[in-house]
Amino acid sequence: MLLQINGGVTAPRGFRAGGFCAGIKPGNQKPDMAMLVSDVPAISAGVYTKNLVKAAPVKWSSFLTTQYETAQVIVANSGSANACTGDEGYENAAKMAEKAAQCFGLRVEMALVASTGVIGKQLPMDVVLPGIEALSKNLSADEAAGTLAATAIMTTDTEKKEIAVEFDLDGVRVRIGGMCKGSGMIHPNMGTMLGFITTDAAISKEMLQRALASDVEDTFNMISVDGDTSTNDTVFMLANGMAGNRRITDESADYTVFCAALRHVTSYLAKRIAEDGEGATKLLEVMVQNAAEKADAVLLAKSVACSSLVKAAMYGNDANWGRVMCALGYAGVSFDPSLTDILFKSSEGSVQVVQNGVATEYDEEVATSILSAPRVSMQIDIKSGNKSATAWGCDLTYDYVKINADYRS
Amino acid sequence: MLLQINGGVTAPRGFRAGGFCAGIKPGNQKPDMAMLVSDVPAISAGVYTKNLVKAAPVKWSSFLTTQYETAQVIVANSGSANACTGDEGYENAAKMAEKAAQCFGLRVEMALVASTGVIGKQLPMDVVLPGIEALSKNLSADEAAGTLAATAIMTTDTEKKEIAVEFDLDGVRVRIGGMCKGSGMIHPNMGTMLGFITTDAAISKEMLQRALASDVEDTFNMISVDGDTSTNDTVFMLANGMAGNRRITDESADYTVFCAALRHVTSYLAKRIAEDGEGATKLLEVMVQNAAEKADAVLLAKSVACSSLVKAAMYGNDANWGRVMCALGYAGVSFDPSLTDILFKSSEGSVQVVQNGVATEYDEEVATSILSAPRVSMQIDIKSGNKSATAWGCDLTYDYVKINADYRS
Repeated sequence: MLLQINGGVTAPRGFRAGGFCAGIKPGNQKPDMAMLVSDVPAISAGVYTKNLVKAAPVKWSSFLTTQYETAQVIVANSGSANACTGDEGYENAAKMAEKAAQCFGLRVEMALVASTGVIGKQLPMDVVLPGIEALSKNLSADEAAGTLAATAIMTTDTEKKEIAVEFDLDGVRVRIGGMCKGSGMIHPNMGTMLGFITTDAAISKEMLQRALASDVEDTFNMISVDGDTSTNDTVFMLANGMAGNRRITDESADYTVFCAALRHVTSYLAKRIAEDGEGATKLLEVMVQNAAEKADAVLLAKSVACSSLVKAAMYGNDANWGRVMCALGYAGVSFDPSLTDILFKSSEGSVQVVQNGVATEYDEEVATSILSAPRVSMQIDIKSGNKSATAWGCDLTYDYVKINADYRS
Repeated sequence: MLLQINGGVTAPRGFRAGGFCAGIKPGNQKPDMAMLVSDVPAISAGVYTKNLVKAAPVKWSSFLTTQYETAQVIVANSGSANACTGDEGYENAAKMAEKAAQCFGLRVEMALVASTGVIGKQLPMDVVLPGIEALSKNLSADEAAGTLAATAIMTTDTEKKEIAVEFDLDGVRVRIGGMCKGSGMIHPNMGTMLGFITTDAAISKEMLQRALASDVEDTFNMISVDGDTSTNDTVFMLANGMAGNRRITDESADYTVFCAALRHVTSYLAKRIAEDGEGATKLLEVMVQNAAEKADAVLLAKSVACSSLVKAAMYGNDANWGRVMCALGYAGVSFDPSLTDILFKSSEGSVQVVQNGVATEYDEEVATSILSAPRVSMQIDIKSGNKSATAWGCDLTYDYVKINADYRS
């Protein structure tokens, strides 16, 4: 039985976290550095952006999570992405890791690094390194410390994003906690903006990486705010084994339970990112049903969730289903438009607007009222098979434009 | 020698046009139907949307331009796209053609049809058919008649888009004229919104189709307003041979001259669409240079021109080149980011912002002033080969959102 509990990354045993305002952006008053430490070496897993232009911390951390079994410290900053910063940027990522490891008497390869913010500026190391020092002395396993870390990684996010769950593995109580950030430049490809997931479960490196990599395909990789795949997308997962469960080493029943719990955490966090998309007023869920192949369902769902015209119509509470049909049509998937059904659904009710490719006799006012809810679902049935996929996005608003026309100033 | 002359589709010999307000949208006061007629049967060519969801007029006209050598009448309407309208919609497209052909005593297969506007509503045939009748009696070869037709096909366009050129083929004076519409749902794939090109050149069916199909790859298919490929994209070309030149039947020197003139017409029209993108305040030109393959250059240029974040930065006159690097990185093309140079250019001057993947010491104020011009170019050199491509887009503004949140109301 899966139980959602309070807290985030510090909910599992043996994890401490903290946040600190180092002043990475001049004049910044909010926390801009976060740290997460496991009391013992933790099995590490990571998934990263597929953008060819990779930020320095992505290069650093992806090397470590593939080459080393464990990690123990994660240090992250907002305010600067440390991307497109050349050799100097990579050296700065390494210096961050070095400093963080040093604070705990660890080898440098035990320290993972993540950055988010403006691309192309060098990190102000004169504030970053003292920031790491200060952070290392102010960590706690309290719920509030996890929350502070979740706050410190925010950029244009309007709300912190964290969750924790508790479940049993073979009679042993295990927890998974997670936090993430992400609001713009969100169209993850094998990762997301920044996500940090902790667990006290005992699990092998191979199975942890497998669980995470397969999970993000259906969660973080199914959200989009603006179609832009970031240079910094990173999801880390640390498993320190302190729950004392029988170690998961293959695709056992325990692994299935573990994956289901992980799915609960990541799908929650992924939806929170979509809902908090830059300027967004609502969460848009696009469910494509009965496709011939899973890959078809994924492409169709993403095509609708990413359409600027669909997103703008959602902002206007306009049941302009023609734009949905249009986005399905250019998804690059073969299907029969004349079999397609579309249904809009929210807390205000549901209405079928398309049957077999043409309009039903629906009431526009009813449809508008359904679309005016803060969470709207579209159910699209293409009647070509039995595979489904769900994508999450948000509406396109004036504020998205405002935020991104002024981001650097 | 190519000379740009006044006028549009009626500039070539033997073409008459007109526009009429039939009242397709209730309360509409502007012309919403256009007609174009050649005095003699004209060799026809067409390129159409690759969207799987094809509008009824696309199905009708693509059948005709592939199965029949010639066409003589084109009838088009704005206000309703006649897409996702089922069998009734297809019958209505056929009825439009039938009526138009009848007005001139022609067989039905001589009449091409195009529609643009809201998806999913049936055409009000009670006003469309009388509209065709009225139009057929008010055609003229005057420049003003071509302009009226160009106006009648506009939807959210803020300006009519037409052009005409004159050139010599083996000593004979030949003309090409064109008009188009398009402002939103613009991300053409093998066609564009609606484009109509006329010429009095004598040219074979095969060579006309080849010229048009290859031309749109570098013109209409290289523009994007919002990444949404329409259900109705159509470019028609009619060549009536009335100039009296030696008929073009192969890839002769005459064909090369003809293609260069066509390119002048279509690249002008394509840029006019991008510049008049819904809500746009500026034209964005993205030139990718020195790619290994042409296809790579195309993908990279389109990726930048389509990025919501790049487009919003352009609206804010913000030289946020990190977003350009980011969009290059997720284009799906292999290149070395650490070799990339980026230069911004406009009537206000030029500034290199990136050299070998990292920032130059450019002045932000100078960059902002360059970006504040109404037409901005980005020159991106990836130093991997010698192939180039140019894409055209526009900025992303509050007004794009406003127009598309309210489009149907």
